[in-house]
Amino acid sequence: MRLYNMADSGNCYKIRLCAAQVGQELDLVPVDILKGESRTDEFLAKNPNGRVPTLELDGGTFLPESNAAIFYLAEGTPLLSDDRLIRAQTLQWMFFEQYSHEPYIAVARFWKSIQPGGEEEKRHMFAEWHERGYQALDVMERHLAVQDFFAGNTYSIADIALYAYTHAAHEGGFTLDAYPRIRTWIDKVSSQSGHIPMM
Amino acid sequence: MRLYNMADSGNCYKIRLCAAQVGQELDLVPVDILKGESRTDEFLAKNPNGRVPTLELDGGTFLPESNAAIFYLAEGTPLLSDDRLIRAQTLQWMFFEQYSHEPYIAVARFWKSIQPGGEEEKRHMFAEWHERGYQALDVMERHLAVQDFFAGNTYSIADIALYAYTHAAHEGGFTLDAYPRIRTWIDKVSSQSGHIPMM
Repeated sequence: MRLYNMADSGNCYKIRLCAAQVGQELDLVPVDILKGESRTDEFLAKNPNGRVPTLELDGGTFLPESNAAIFYLAEGTPLLSDDRLIRAQTLQWMFFEQYSHEPYIAVARFWKSIQPGGEEEKRHMFAEWHERGYQALDVMERHLAVQDFFAGNTYSIADIALYAYTHAAHEGGFTLDAYPRIRTWIDKVSSQSGHIPMM
Repeated sequence: MRLYNMADSGNCYKIRLCAAQVGQELDLVPVDILKGESRTDEFLAKNPNGRVPTLELDGGTFLPESNAAIFYLAEGTPLLSDDRLIRAQTLQWMFFEQYSHEPYIAVARFWKSIQPGGEEEKRHMFAEWHERGYQALDVMERHLAVQDFFAGNTYSIADIALYAYTHAAHEGGFTLDAYPRIRTWIDKVSSQSGHIPMM
């Protein structure tokens, strides 16, 4: 399989981490979104939504959306339960990640630490991103009071999805000082067999 | 099962529509988010993220996130393929809906047509919501040039997820005049067996 990849994108990292842990080799094709490389006609033919990651399966099918890609990779492995309820709860946290977490925690990180000049350009947005991002972290901390992981009380792709940007939240100006359970969970995730770092 | 529901929420409608089509009865519990009813301590005990829809399963488990709930309801039915690739493509479009479509098309509708005084309060946001929303509609129109539906070329929960707010996009100030394939697809979705309207 081939991954159209940007090294410092947490969404791309989810796929690299999941692939490493399920034993799937990936050919990495660098795409620099800062240079518009995800918006060329050639790339839009692969993913009309113009985003990385995009996973190219061995049959030549292009699969956009990081969380759909890790769901595909994890089918039939311990990273994705075959229990109907736990699968739905796995997806619950993955949709939470894309709707209530990533648009604040990842976006703040992008403008603060990745896009040159971005912190100045988006100065007026950080208060809202931090407010909403901390709300998401509150929801995670509350869940971790009753379970060690996010779905089925075992390490899964729900943890991979949430780990990608949570462990890098400081790059968006967040602090995890008030979130001891999230810090413990980060340590647990990063000590799983086959773990690889983002960079 | 019990659905914590707001009648004019498209995310809640997805679950009512899917349940109707798979033959699952739902007890509807009205929650008025405009009155803060999703932020009470009692409701936050059900869903710490403070949002409707929240589906209460027969065992008493609460399942937030509309797209996780319809994935749960559709397991084992024709609305969700058991083919690994088609399942991932179904999720691809459902994540697209929550990340690239709903935050613009549903949010514009909320502030224009649901929240009293919202259009005035958020006047400065509509240009961006419309730009991003039309980009999402462009992606859908392009896909519908090659397939009749979004995943596996047959009606599925991917269509339910995208239909909920697309068919009501005019309530957010969008027009589908330039999207003939989306209009044809809307007609196809609304003529499926067991279809129910939003209101």
